[in-house]
Order: sequence, then C-alpha cells, then structure tokens
Amino acid sequence: MIQGLSGAPGIAIGRALLLRRKETAAKQTVLPEETGRELQRIDEAFEKTKERLQRLRAETGLKLGEREADIFAAHLAILSDPELEEEIRRSVTESHFSAEAAVEAAVRLLAEEFEAMDDAYMRERAADFRDIGQALLGQLSGADDSRLSRLEEPTVLIAYELTPSDTAQLPPLVCGFVTDGGGATSHAAIMARSLGLPAVVGARSALQSIATGDKIVADGSTGEVWVNPPEDVYRAYVAKQAEWKARLEADRSLAGAEAVTQDGRTIALGANIGSAAETANALANGAEEIGLFRTEFMYMNRDREPDEEEQTRQYEAVFRAMGDRPVVLRTLDVGGDKELPYLNLPADPNPFLGWRAIRLCLDRPGLFATQLRAMLRASAAGGLLRILFPMISTVTELRRAKEAVAQAADSLRREGFAVPERWETGIMIEIPSAALMADVLAAEVDFFSIGTNDLTQYTLAVDRMNEHISALYDSYHPAVLRLIRHVVESARGQGKRVGVCGEMAGDSSAVPLLVGLGVDELSMNAPALPSVRAVVRGLRHAEAAELAREALRLEDGRQVRELLARRRA
Amino acid sequence: MIQGLSGAPGIAIGRALLLRRKETAAKQTVLPEETGRELQRIDEAFEKTKERLQRLRAETGLKLGEREADIFAAHLAILSDPELEEEIRRSVTESHFSAEAAVEAAVRLLAEEFEAMDDAYMRERAADFRDIGQALLGQLSGADDSRLSRLEEPTVLIAYELTPSDTAQLPPLVCGFVTDGGGATSHAAIMARSLGLPAVVGARSALQSIATGDKIVADGSTGEVWVNPPEDVYRAYVAKQAEWKARLEADRSLAGAEAVTQDGRTIALGANIGSAAETANALANGAEEIGLFRTEFMYMNRDREPDEEEQTRQYEAVFRAMGDRPVVLRTLDVGGDKELPYLNLPADPNPFLGWRAIRLCLDRPGLFATQLRAMLRASAAGGLLRILFPMISTVTELRRAKEAVAQAADSLRREGFAVPERWETGIMIEIPSAALMADVLAAEVDFFSIGTNDLTQYTLAVDRMNEHISALYDSYHPAVLRLIRHVVESARGQGKRVGVCGEMAGDSSAVPLLVGLGVDELSMNAPALPSVRAVVRGLRHAEAAELAREALRLEDGRQVRELLARRRA
Repeated sequence: MIQGLSGAPGIAIGRALLLRRKETAAKQTVLPEETGRELQRIDEAFEKTKERLQRLRAETGLKLGEREADIFAAHLAILSDPELEEEIRRSVTESHFSAEAAVEAAVRLLAEEFEAMDDAYMRERAADFRDIGQALLGQLSGADDSRLSRLEEPTVLIAYELTPSDTAQLPPLVCGFVTDGGGATSHAAIMARSLGLPAVVGARSALQSIATGDKIVADGSTGEVWVNPPEDVYRAYVAKQAEWKARLEADRSLAGAEAVTQDGRTIALGANIGSAAETANALANGAEEIGLFRTEFMYMNRDREPDEEEQTRQYEAVFRAMGDRPVVLRTLDVGGDKELPYLNLPADPNPFLGWRAIRLCLDRPGLFATQLRAMLRASAAGGLLRILFPMISTVTELRRAKEAVAQAADSLRREGFAVPERWETGIMIEIPSAALMADVLAAEVDFFSIGTNDLTQYTLAVDRMNEHISALYDSYHPAVLRLIRHVVESARGQGKRVGVCGEMAGDSSAVPLLVGLGVDELSMNAPALPSVRAVVRGLRHAEAAELAREALRLEDGRQVRELLARRRA
Repeated sequence: MIQGLSGAPGIAIGRALLLRRKETAAKQTVLPEETGRELQRIDEAFEKTKERLQRLRAETGLKLGEREADIFAAHLAILSDPELEEEIRRSVTESHFSAEAAVEAAVRLLAEEFEAMDDAYMRERAADFRDIGQALLGQLSGADDSRLSRLEEPTVLIAYELTPSDTAQLPPLVCGFVTDGGGATSHAAIMARSLGLPAVVGARSALQSIATGDKIVADGSTGEVWVNPPEDVYRAYVAKQAEWKARLEADRSLAGAEAVTQDGRTIALGANIGSAAETANALANGAEEIGLFRTEFMYMNRDREPDEEEQTRQYEAVFRAMGDRPVVLRTLDVGGDKELPYLNLPADPNPFLGWRAIRLCLDRPGLFATQLRAMLRASAAGGLLRILFPMISTVTELRRAKEAVAQAADSLRREGFAVPERWETGIMIEIPSAALMADVLAAEVDFFSIGTNDLTQYTLAVDRMNEHISALYDSYHPAVLRLIRHVVESARGQGKRVGVCGEMAGDSSAVPLLVGLGVDELSMNAPALPSVRAVVRGLRHAEAAELAREALRLEDGRQVRELLARRRA
C-alpha cells in the first residue's frame, strides 16, 4: 500500500497504466535512492537508440546506398564510445541528476569541447553530439499515448503529473488516477474533482512501485493506493465503490433543481464545452446555460481555419440544443502554446505573455470577423447570445472588440441575414490589470467571466506546468481572492453579473468561497455540476460570506485551505 | 528630414550606424509598398548564403576530403533549385510576408512535404531544408555588433527597436539613437531618458532612408531627424546642442544638493549598478545610496559561479566606495532568459513565469548561502547592508529567505567572521500578488523596492520584448499605478520605506507621478540622477499627490500620459 494525498474523492478500481511523459523529463535532480532507477533508464535509452540507429542504417543502406547510411554509422560510433555514457552516468551518481538532465549536460559539455577545437571536422562533430542527445531524450521521454487510446478495461492512470491536455482527453475507461507529484491544488487534483474522477496525488513512489497491468485500488478520499491488494481488501473496496456511486446518483437526481442556498441566494450553473457534441451531456447534468464554449477546439488539428458556414452550423447546433437558455461563445483563444500552423504565428519565447487571444484577433480582422458573423448568424436559432472576449488587459481592446461585433452585425444586415436584436458582451477576467480595472471595464460590459486558472498564473507569475514551481501556483491565494472580490464589488455597483469559469468553479471545496465572495454564476465541466449543485444547496450564503471575509485576511493559500477544511469538519 | 516622435530630449549629432537585428525578423507582415525591399533582402540573403556554402565546401574539401564537402554541395543544390526561392517570393508578393516570415513559412511547407513522403531518403531532405532555412534567417538578421565595438567618432544608432541588452552595453561614442518602431513608452525611449541620451522613436522609414555613414542630426525633443542636412541646419543644431549640454551641466552641478520638493518632502536618490566599477560614476552623479546592485552580472559569462571570496571582494569594493551610505544588494536574479550554463537549468517554455530568482535560490541552498555569506562579510567594511530578494510572490518565500540569511550569519559567527549587528531585508515588488499582499508582507520587511518593469509585464500579461504587443506594455497604466498606491499605503501604515528601482524611476516624465503616489526613494541608472533631482526640486508634493489621485481614476496609460503632458505644458 502506498500512502498519497487526497486529490479527488471516490474509489477507483482497475488496471494500472503508467504514463511517462515530458513532465518527468523536466525534473532536474532526483533523490540519492533514485539514482539506480535513473542509471537503468539511461541504459535502456542507449540500447533503444542503438537499435533504432542500426535499423535506420540498414534500411538506408538498402534503399539509398552505403554513403547515406554512413551518417548513422557515425552516430552509432559516438554512441558506442564510452566517453559519452560515462559522462552521463557520472552526473547521475555524483550530482544526482535525472537521466534527462544528465544527458543534456553531458551533450552540451562534449559539444562545446568539440566546438572549441581548431579544426572544422571536429567542430562539425558537435552537431552530431547534439543529434544524439535529442535521440536519447526522445527515448527517455517515451510517452505512451497509443495505449491510452486502446483501453479495454477500467484503468487507473499512474503518472508523474498530468497536464491540462492529458486530462482534457481522458477516454471513458479511465476510472481514476494516481500521481507521483503534485498536491491538493495541483492541476490534476482540481481537474479530477471537476470531472468527478477519484484521484490520489503526491504518492511519492507510485511510478517506481507500480507496473503497467498491476491491479490498483485507489481511495481518493484517504489517499491510499493498493497495488495488487489481497482479496479481502479488494472486496471491501468494491463495496465502498458501490456506496460512492450511489451517492453520486443521488446528487445527479437533483439535476432539475435550482442551485439555491439555504437562505435563498440562487447561483446560476453553466457548463463549459469544447464542441457542440458536448451539449447533450451538459443538459443531462442539469446545466442551466452554456457558460463557456471554447471555440478554439474547432480551429485545431486542421490545415485552415473553419469558414463562416462551418462555424455557423456548429454554433447553431449549440443554440438549438439549449433552447431558450443563454449560450456564452468565447472568441478564439489561441497563440503561443496553442498554435495553429495555418495562422503562421512566430515562435514566442514567452507564449503566456504573448500575442494571443483577443490581441491576435484584433490584429487579424478577417479571422475575427468570420467568427463574429458566424456567432451572430447562429444565435438567431436560439436563446441569448453572450459574446466573451478572452485576454482583455485594457479598456481600449474591449472597445475595439465591441466595434468589430457592431461592424459584423451591420455587414450581416446589409447582406440580408437575420441578426438578433440583442446580444450581450463580456470579458474574461484573467489578466490582473482587468481585475484591477474592473470598475472602469464594468461600464462597458454586460458580464464578467473570471478565468481563475490564468488569473492565478499571472497574479503569482507562475507557469503551473513548470514542475519546479508548481507548488507556488495556488488559486486559493488571498491575492487571487482579493482580485475576485474587487471584480464582484465593481460589477455589483453597476448591476453587472460575475461568473467564474476556471477550474475553481467545478471544485466542490472552492464553491463555498466563491459563493461567499459574491459571484453570480459558476460554469464548469459537466460532470462536476451535480456535486456543485449539492454543495450550493447545502450552504448558507451569510456564512459563506463570513468565510470569504476571513479568507481575504489570511496570509497564503495554505491558510485558506485549512480554513475551508476546518469549516467542512 | 524624417519626422519621428520624441523619445528622450537632447540633440544628437554624428554618423549613422544601422543595426539590423532579430527584432526586425519578428515582424510577420510588411506594408504593400515595402515588399520590394523584402524581395531585395531575400535576393541578398540567397547570394550571401550561397557564397558562404561555396567557401565552406572548398575549405572542407581541402581539409577533410570530398565526401565531407558533399554535404554543402547538397545544400547548395537545394538553394539553387528555383522552387524554394519562388515559394518564398510568392509569400512576399501575395501575402506581404516579411522576408523572415516568408523563409520560415516556405521552409516549413517544403520540409513537411518531404517528411510526408514514403521514402527515407526524401524524408531526410526535410532536415536539409530546415538547415538552409536557418542559414537564410541568419543572413537576414545580420546583426552587426562588431562595428558597434569599434566606433571612432560620435555615432547615432539607427535600429528597428533596441533591446535592454543593446542599451545596457552602448559604448560611450554613441550619442543618441533613432528607432523605426516603438513609442514614447517603449523600452528604448525609457532607457534613453534614463541614460540621458537623445532619442527619436517611431521614425517609420528610418531604416529604409538612412545608410550607415550618413551624417545625422536627431532632435529628441521634437522628433526631427535630419539625414545629411544642409550646412545652415547643421550649424543651428550644433548651437542648440551646446545649449542643451550647458543645461545638463547645470543639473549636474546640483549633485551635492538634496532632492527635496518645494514644499519640503525629501526623496532619497539612489543609483542602480551592475558592478563595483560603476560606483564612482554613481557618486559623481550625486547618488546618496546604491539603491540596487544587480549581482547577477557577476555570475554571467563565466563557467562556474563566483565563490565566496570573490563575491566578498566585489561587495566590499562597493561598501568602501560608498562610505557610510546604504547599499542595497539584490540576491541572484537569474533563470529562464538570463541563463547561466553552469547552473544546468532546464529549458523553460515560459521563462518569465518560471523557475528563477528567489525560487531558484531557495531550491539551491548552497548557491544562495555562498552569496548571503559574502554579503554579510562584505558589509562589515561600510554602511548599512540592505538585502533585497527578487521575485517574491508569497510570504512563505520571504520567511524562508530571511531564515537563510539568519543561518548564514550564524555560520559566519561560528567561524569567527565579523558579522554586522544590523542589516535590513526587503523584497522586490514585481509580481502582482506581492503588491496585492503588501499589507501582509510589510510586517516582515524593512523596505519594499518596486520593479516597475516586471510589475508592468505581469500586471498586463505583456512580454515587452514581443513587438506584436509591445504597444500594450505601459508602466503608466492605472492598473500598475493602483498597485503602486496599495504598496505605498500598506508600507506607510507600518512605517516601512518604499523605493522604485525600475526604469520609471529614472524617467523624468514619470517622477511627478511617483512622488505623488508617495514613494520615498528612487533608484536609477546614474546618468539620470541630475535631471531627476532637478525635477524633484521643481515639484510641489501636494500638487503631485493631486496629480496621482487623478491618474488613478483614469482609464488607460494613454490618458495618464496626456494628463502628465498637460501638466508640463
């Protein structure tokens, strides 16, 4: 049995599948007792890289001739020279570098030695070292996505840490996960709560002690992970799992009920979706509106942008399915890390602080107009259209974006299209300046939608994907809560609505805090709706407000989480 | 005559030196009328790359043999094939891509075509295309640092935009600069004001109309740039320049005087330095203290970290030179973009939100302890030591950093070193959460130092080096000013001092605002001290405070700058 931390409640029972990914590679050093494992990984990477080069040499020799094949022979010779491997192993044994860090350091050292030589041929060998380094790192990262797409039975994922893209694409047979790193506020834990998946985080030796195919029982409430448990333990957990599922069902049976607190404050509950197909699931879980349609998914994995007709059809499908309920369509939120090859964006050394989302759309008026026209046309088919602009940092951008909507509507009218008489515009509050200037911005919008993920990232200057500092990323930090509070107060003073659509909205443990801070709407992944509804219905708003006031006075996120835990106990 | 915008006042007269740098390369598209120039640049890049490959082939053939030389022959063949060049030229003529963007797009397209082929040999050609793309881009960026280091007469730099590293290293013969891009709040303009160098920015056609060696007269106050002006114009400007220099001298003659407003509020003026050698210049310009020693420069361009003895000697030199005046030593501020190879830091996809500065030092206790010990030892030689921690986002980090100082002092005492009885600790306010939590943090520090550059960057989520969005980067934005105001109020309530050490502090036009917001100290590059002192001595604090209150209510940075301009007028 491995003891980890509670990530998300529930019982997961299934076969282990280990994911080794790039996140592991980012680890610079390991504990002294882990060096043995790193040396073994290095051996394996050398073996596999040699096999691959031999295969490449043979194939190339047959197809193209010996001269072309010689490139691979040269690489093989370097790989077989003991100097490189010895240098790598020394970094692991002496400096406790991870396999990846050791490869990088050794390759850099040797490449620089060759580069410094007064001989063109030797200098060119530096490039060979770098190529070989890349090949070794490729073997070490060895992600295994393919198995994830071919699951045949309930599966518990075992990983160092899971990224947003990992958790966004989990197949239904994944019944829970266990991570080696991370804590209760890690992305993986929050996503698990939002998806209703049991999760254990910070199970320090999980990646070492568990092999793919092991039978796993993970209790997300206690943090216990059993590897190939004895029969009596297994049976006890099967019973516990049945109980937990029954409780979930009870929450789901409330799907038609309003999310209203004991003392009568109603919170609107919406669903975040990434495609029209998800609308059915949103409704099944009792979504009262689409609180966030992430339209960027429509633009991905293709070789040109979707045209106006295609977008109109997609949005129409959402409006039709939602009947007279409101639908929030967020305009294209890409750039930097979410690159679309056909947009020909330059590489960005700091993508999160870069040319993206509304910044990009305002600079590419054609791209923007196509989307806005499709949104307006589609909304004729259903309820209220709410257009949401991402990444607004200053009021000028908002005015320009609204002007673009007005122009799109004018052009549609001139062309004889049906355009709705009324729509609403709002902005994401995800950049600190937007939160700080909410009083000025409120005059120009109908609603705010707080993106707690990015707002946390910018407010604390922490890239949450960077494992060296992920402990600093904390949406419960009073600095973030103070910004949310300022947004709510600014909006209320001008009669505007405030929603939250970041991961916090679907995190049951954060809901009392958000309700207490005064937000009007919560929008989340559909599976989280039943439990969030149950939490809201159990709250007293006056008590939640007192809780929030107390949290605003605390020093850091840990203290806020302790406060929430005391309240639950 | 070219009309640009005022960047920094003063008259520059000298020979033009054009700097073409990577910043130019980042430009994605050009105006239709600029495509001719881009096509010409492409022709030149092809010619030069061919010449270089022919030279390489010949040299390699002689030294290493024909087989090795064949690599370059293959590259030459690709370069001479019309398909590549045609594809590149088409992107320029049809899509108005810049030369660089066109090369990147064409190389990507062709490389992907080859990669998709069912033939190993053809797939390998994809790598050749990429290599050639790199070679072409290298020719297009064609930075010319070498000429900058061999100037022989007064020189006016002409560039698309200047980066912080450009302006940090300007040789003394550079008497001003003209940039094609940028505005009054661009980095180049702010640095110019801080260095006391005349500058014209946003001179749209400067790079096209000026050639290296042209005689240039640039008036930084009016934005006028004369290229090879007639004799009478030239003589008029020589006289104007003499007047301007006399005024500067007058400001400098106040070096011994206090920076005190008309109504009696004293502002402490400090100098920012990057090495002990700069202390003399700081004193000559009337620095009352070292407000910021950026110790990271000591760690750069070497193959291992400076040891305790070397650091102690450096810091001692500063303390000795400053006598009994205070010295702020900032602990190591590196990571991400300021990488030190010997620290073996992993590559970071978002360096500004990454593992850097205090985050790194707390994770590398040996590195941190060495520096803290050297600081404590050195301060025995002089005035008050103020230790400044960069990149603090939450109070826990500050407590851990202070604990590290206490431990360093204990260990020094045990080893018999002289340790000062008293020192002060402070933090950079450069992350929004630190500004928002200043009330909590104030209890744990002796002083705050506001880094307006990074604070602006994080608050607005704008990488100011990214030219696509640099217009959004604005330290005058009310969101930034509101954070500064909160920091000042929090500190004042607890009797702590607040300084500003970002570029704003040395920017004469920002000084009334900062004084009005209530800061106690301004620390800047030494050349800016005389004019900032003169500005402070001309202010009434009560009026500045009213100005600041008004600025806090405005909508955006443009309105704030207009307010300041009206006040000056």
